[in-house]
Amino acid sequence: MTSLDKHNRMANAIRFLAMDAVEKANSGHPGLPMGAADIATVLFTRYLKFDPKNSLWPDRDRFVLSAGHGSMLLYSLLFLTGYEDMTMEDIKQFRQLGSKTAGHPEYGHASGIETTTGPLGQGIANAVGMAIAERKLEEEFGSDLQNHFTYALCGDGCLMEGISQEAIALAGHLKLNKLVLFWDNNSITIDGAVSLSDSTDQVMRFKSAHWNTIEIDGHDVDQISAAIEAAQKSDRPTFIACKTIIGFGAPNKQGTHKVHGSPLGAEEIAAARKALNWEAEAFTVPADVLDAWRLAGLRSTTVRKDWEDRLAATAAEKKAEFVRRFAGDLPGNFDSAIDAFKKKIAENNPTVATRKASEDALEVINGIVIETLGGSADLTPSNNTKTSQMKSITPTDFSGRYMHWGIREHAMAAAMNGISLHGGLIPYSGGFLIFSDYCRPSVRLAALMGIRVVHVWTHDSIGVGEDGPTHQPVEQVAALRAIPNLLIFRPADETETAECWQLALKEKHRPSGLALTRQNLAPARKTYEEKNLCAQGAYELVSAADAKVTIFASGSEVELALKAQAVLDGKGIATRVVSVPCVELFFDQPESYQTAVVGNSPVKIAVEAGVREGWDHFIGPKGAFIGMKSFGASGPAKDLFKHFGITVEAVVAAAEKELA
Amino acid sequence: MTSLDKHNRMANAIRFLAMDAVEKANSGHPGLPMGAADIATVLFTRYLKFDPKNSLWPDRDRFVLSAGHGSMLLYSLLFLTGYEDMTMEDIKQFRQLGSKTAGHPEYGHASGIETTTGPLGQGIANAVGMAIAERKLEEEFGSDLQNHFTYALCGDGCLMEGISQEAIALAGHLKLNKLVLFWDNNSITIDGAVSLSDSTDQVMRFKSAHWNTIEIDGHDVDQISAAIEAAQKSDRPTFIACKTIIGFGAPNKQGTHKVHGSPLGAEEIAAARKALNWEAEAFTVPADVLDAWRLAGLRSTTVRKDWEDRLAATAAEKKAEFVRRFAGDLPGNFDSAIDAFKKKIAENNPTVATRKASEDALEVINGIVIETLGGSADLTPSNNTKTSQMKSITPTDFSGRYMHWGIREHAMAAAMNGISLHGGLIPYSGGFLIFSDYCRPSVRLAALMGIRVVHVWTHDSIGVGEDGPTHQPVEQVAALRAIPNLLIFRPADETETAECWQLALKEKHRPSGLALTRQNLAPARKTYEEKNLCAQGAYELVSAADAKVTIFASGSEVELALKAQAVLDGKGIATRVVSVPCVELFFDQPESYQTAVVGNSPVKIAVEAGVREGWDHFIGPKGAFIGMKSFGASGPAKDLFKHFGITVEAVVAAAEKELA
Repeated sequence: MTSLDKHNRMANAIRFLAMDAVEKANSGHPGLPMGAADIATVLFTRYLKFDPKNSLWPDRDRFVLSAGHGSMLLYSLLFLTGYEDMTMEDIKQFRQLGSKTAGHPEYGHASGIETTTGPLGQGIANAVGMAIAERKLEEEFGSDLQNHFTYALCGDGCLMEGISQEAIALAGHLKLNKLVLFWDNNSITIDGAVSLSDSTDQVMRFKSAHWNTIEIDGHDVDQISAAIEAAQKSDRPTFIACKTIIGFGAPNKQGTHKVHGSPLGAEEIAAARKALNWEAEAFTVPADVLDAWRLAGLRSTTVRKDWEDRLAATAAEKKAEFVRRFAGDLPGNFDSAIDAFKKKIAENNPTVATRKASEDALEVINGIVIETLGGSADLTPSNNTKTSQMKSITPTDFSGRYMHWGIREHAMAAAMNGISLHGGLIPYSGGFLIFSDYCRPSVRLAALMGIRVVHVWTHDSIGVGEDGPTHQPVEQVAALRAIPNLLIFRPADETETAECWQLALKEKHRPSGLALTRQNLAPARKTYEEKNLCAQGAYELVSAADAKVTIFASGSEVELALKAQAVLDGKGIATRVVSVPCVELFFDQPESYQTAVVGNSPVKIAVEAGVREGWDHFIGPKGAFIGMKSFGASGPAKDLFKHFGITVEAVVAAAEKELA
Repeated sequence: MTSLDKHNRMANAIRFLAMDAVEKANSGHPGLPMGAADIATVLFTRYLKFDPKNSLWPDRDRFVLSAGHGSMLLYSLLFLTGYEDMTMEDIKQFRQLGSKTAGHPEYGHASGIETTTGPLGQGIANAVGMAIAERKLEEEFGSDLQNHFTYALCGDGCLMEGISQEAIALAGHLKLNKLVLFWDNNSITIDGAVSLSDSTDQVMRFKSAHWNTIEIDGHDVDQISAAIEAAQKSDRPTFIACKTIIGFGAPNKQGTHKVHGSPLGAEEIAAARKALNWEAEAFTVPADVLDAWRLAGLRSTTVRKDWEDRLAATAAEKKAEFVRRFAGDLPGNFDSAIDAFKKKIAENNPTVATRKASEDALEVINGIVIETLGGSADLTPSNNTKTSQMKSITPTDFSGRYMHWGIREHAMAAAMNGISLHGGLIPYSGGFLIFSDYCRPSVRLAALMGIRVVHVWTHDSIGVGEDGPTHQPVEQVAALRAIPNLLIFRPADETETAECWQLALKEKHRPSGLALTRQNLAPARKTYEEKNLCAQGAYELVSAADAKVTIFASGSEVELALKAQAVLDGKGIATRVVSVPCVELFFDQPESYQTAVVGNSPVKIAVEAGVREGWDHFIGPKGAFIGMKSFGASGPAKDLFKHFGITVEAVVAAAEKELA
């Protein structure tokens, strides 16, 4: 058997596993795995540095299947190369409830799935984030410990989605030379030929972003091989445009959209069997082919062992730091530093915008949590995300810790996911809350994957003022709270902001967003308390025996609630105030705690400069809500709060009306 | 005075109005208006076809300020060229509550504001939509009635946002040769130099999308003029890269990020006055300059009159059609056609997926509402959006009515906004509901502007099945409902789908989204009723005297609610069922109607295969909710509904538990 024969049989093993699994599930996408099998086979058998027995080895190459619908490509590779938690039984359970082999690759379902993909374009930006992390960690720990490539495979859909442009422009700018992107250029989309909707010269497009570009026949082993070797030597990220035939090997359907997202059918699979000269039955890999694949899976064992030797030989402190960072543990003195900071706050109780409070908290955090990688989507002076420790990262100098992401919220959020998934760093962003809409798909994926990224979203209400309704979030907090497994914090003052940052960073398996004000806020809490009160999501800020009124509020409206409470109290109306910095954490509390916090006062009022959605949980459908019913407007912030009736007077009037 | 002197004085009038207005408001962005004043002056005084006295003239050129923060550029132009509803007093009220001159241009605030901009990149895609509309209408009505250019001005932020790539790739593909995009290439962003975050070769990037590209000095009148003339002759869209100095004329601050988004200060304005040799006081335009501008505003009067003559000479039927289409009125037989369709449905009461029901409704609608322009973001076979009347639009043939938008949800939604704003067409999209997240910023802008676009969002729950959690919306319906002024319909069967389509199309000033199922649904209503029951947002589908239980449900869960009702009824438990196809329309109803529909039954249950957020309004915080608490999973749909406990049994059990 020639080496080409061997290659073909190995690639065909992928093709038939994909055909068989999709056929059995009666659902799925055989086209991409069949078309990209040659690329994947060359990459995984000759170049990719990975060890199926040590899937979390920090210096492994990363492989991202951005075109996640081709999940059977990845599952086949994991099974064939010998990941022990990916069995033939798992392949047979493709797309069944509870299986590891979900319709799209799901991070955490099985080893070797580096990220959840499916929503197109995300994987490209994830890979950019991974390459950023690698470059940064190599700078920090040296190439003995960090020196790997990041490979990604994308399709036309990934390249059409706008996020891809944001990601490739950034990668080109940063000269991420260890990033390699394969384009499965099969000229087919769901509607038919790509030419129905696109005629972009992709190679020129990547050149315009300063990428190294290579065009090859994606079924030619030598060309694939040569391209990867050239990419590895490039001083810039490399785009390998691979002309392929979708569904390669299905003689009657290949090259058409019929093979994209549907089972081929028994007849066509039989025809493929004949065409590819494949003797094995369904879900069977011939012994010689499986042996060859398993050998390929062992290829990097020595390299991995050498790396472990180097780690073992590393100075104790550096080694411990490297291990801690990849375990995702915070430094031992983290809590005490926050605690000391809280004590300091209580000494002067500043009146500050929470975006400034966040900067103050970050000044403490960045001093001790040296793995934070900050940044902003070009709103650094507004987001207050760059602290004294944060030198800017530049294309030629990665010693800094601050990323100028550009006006690219979507790629920023997706790259942050990649950084978090890579390990060793904790990314936080900066942006306006309104533009959380621009990166919502990536925020959702962070929540779905359960990874730690922190979004600093400032200018969180009509408090934005003159910039007007296009820049004033009214529904964003509610819309973000609707995403499962995402913590949305809306702290009320400097102390709550510090506590929320503490909680966000301690959450290893949930992403967080902090909604912060542009405008100054008086302190809601004035005395030091050791306990992180925000940890319970909502808590009584002002108690009252036999309360007639309870006012629930978050963020900037807590100040207003406290003032209303004072007025009502002065009128002899016993009033409680509950601060609600994080609805999701509140729902995590025991029923008894939730019931006690909601309380029994006859009148319940919620105040938040956003839409009502979600607040009925606290106040019931008949409770009074002081907030927004429409988009905002352009004008000075104080005029807007008055105009939209979010005032102390309105809260007092609502309470009195309900009590009457 | 030389012609250049005159130009400079006219451009300086823009610069000083911008400086003065920002200074008075103590807020705003003087940098762009000052830097782009020369481009705008050449465009508006020599080329733009517009008539301030007839601002809605259908064949006017469109001008879109994509870099919306430079709003004072637009307001200045509107005032100077003589739009009567833009006075100097309005300019003085810049950024004040209730003024026309909001921080960012707001559609509808004043004539001549063609679209709301500010969220970056949107305007580019709006302009692409306008150019599509023009091309389509020229095809339909001939160049006597439709033959105009669309100009847009963007900044670096617009070009960094991913949506811009989607838009320019589409425009290049479609060869929209009457589209001209100016790039205010001032090399400055908020964080500092563009080089901090980007090094894209923008000209090459546009070439890769097959645009005509021209590079000029954005302060050189002759170069600007020559570029526009070349663009007008191009057979492709044209990108004019204009090198400019941000804040041009402010001698000490120009060319830096200090002039981007802050008042210049009295001292710097005084220096600019000296540098530009400008004698006039604040908010004063010298008479010769204002005269020259007003003359420029009259420039197209004859052209407009000629156009009116041509319209008057047009055959009566065609003329009436043109006028109707631009008035946004539906054909007179629209309601009766829907009514006939509803009768037909009641004859056979099909069990269908609502995506198929939508196709059936569209088959009727597209037959008579010939101004619909359908499309899909490459999911045509899944969205069922292409009916028999819908031939595909191609770069060389715009006689079709169906757009293959490509895998570009964001540009699709923003271009649809542009099409709607242009007038003459009603755009509807196709996409998966999950990917409403990818176009949320544009959907929000449609709601803010109050324009008619209709989004067909199919695969609206875990009913998606095997594609898994990345493709299963659980929070999207709740998150979309949170957007003010947006109608989200979730119809339960073929009849409700027809009614919801009727409502969506009749809403001239609100965008709509239809959340539709992948899976088949049994009919919820089996008898014909003339009244559109969905118009009230929620209505009693099954009534019961002295009801003990009320079940509220939307879309696919109505079937389940009806089955549970039957079971409970069989057990002697009087149960009502309320169908909730559109929460927003329900909130529009009189209080008395709302109270009656919510009712008084002791047990209230809501069923929706999404998150609970919002449903407490109907059932209260203690009501039982049968829905999703987490992301979905990959598996056959029927397995998933069972796994997540969204079943008839669960509803019955919840009712019995609450009654116990």
